[in-house]
Amino acid sequence: MSFRYEIRLSGAGGQGLILIGKILAEAAAIYDEKNATQSQSYGPEARGGASRSEVIISDEDIDYPKATNIDLLLAMTQEAVDKYTADVKPGGIIITDSYFVKNLPGGDFKVYNFPITEIAENEIGKKITANIVALGLIEKLSQVVSDDAVINAIRARVPKGTEETNIKAFRRGQQLAE
Amino acid sequence: MSFRYEIRLSGAGGQGLILIGKILAEAAAIYDEKNATQSQSYGPEARGGASRSEVIISDEDIDYPKATNIDLLLAMTQEAVDKYTADVKPGGIIITDSYFVKNLPGGDFKVYNFPITEIAENEIGKKITANIVALGLIEKLSQVVSDDAVINAIRARVPKGTEETNIKAFRRGQQLAE
Repeated sequence: MSFRYEIRLSGAGGQGLILIGKILAEAAAIYDEKNATQSQSYGPEARGGASRSEVIISDEDIDYPKATNIDLLLAMTQEAVDKYTADVKPGGIIITDSYFVKNLPGGDFKVYNFPITEIAENEIGKKITANIVALGLIEKLSQVVSDDAVINAIRARVPKGTEETNIKAFRRGQQLAE
Repeated sequence: MSFRYEIRLSGAGGQGLILIGKILAEAAAIYDEKNATQSQSYGPEARGGASRSEVIISDEDIDYPKATNIDLLLAMTQEAVDKYTADVKPGGIIITDSYFVKNLPGGDFKVYNFPITEIAENEIGKKITANIVALGLIEKLSQVVSDDAVINAIRARVPKGTEETNIKAFRRGQQLAE
């Protein structure tokens, strides 16, 4: 049987959600030898400062590259939780940042609420690594990409000189999930 | 009547095709107030070093974010020309880089073959601005985004300190098209 895994990364512009989408897609496709698409929609939300990126991972060609039945939602703002919870499938995973999200979604979901941005700021020492902390959570909770593949993709994608800080952030996210 | 314009940007990894896809999508959506999606597929081609990015611009919501009937194809390698010409609609635009492309496509297309990479290297002084020269060609030939919008999106997206060089590359591309 073929598999298809849909991830939506949502929050505000500047939170680095497109970067982690690209890292996930490259990890899956270049290092894990699956197929992946990564996409962004721009519309009225983008003009209001919201950001949304989608990654679809499959073992087959991906003919419809839009997420419609989400397996995992990362929501880094309250607005993103409120807007996108309805697109998550029953039993799906929702990861939220307790730094920004005060009202958690109800319903048949696995909700993981962590102080992602606070940890990035206080433990990693760089608030902008919050996206990579979230990536660690996604890797552990989804089990859809391998640890090695993500590490390779992080090294290939983050600015030179920041690799070790980012890997530390990734490891911290994985730990949180455990 | 609603309009939908499909662009595929194809070539090799490292040619900056994803960046210009993002610039086009942001120009259309954030500055021109249209809707846009930008996507990448990763699969066997990505493992072989090929790169492909798609941008769809519309005045309506974009429900199917995959290009199937291409209005404009940028092909920065011979492989890209050979592989994607068949997806361009009759009368569509194909822009090729004569530095890499030796066999031009036949058929009912408007083909524009320019030494894009050579111009970037010799006239702009930076080979890596070839993508932005191509962006100037795309803007003029497609007429689907406004000049102002692209300039704003370039300023927002290229590395700090490189704005003027990139705008020079963009202007040179526009000139070529005229």
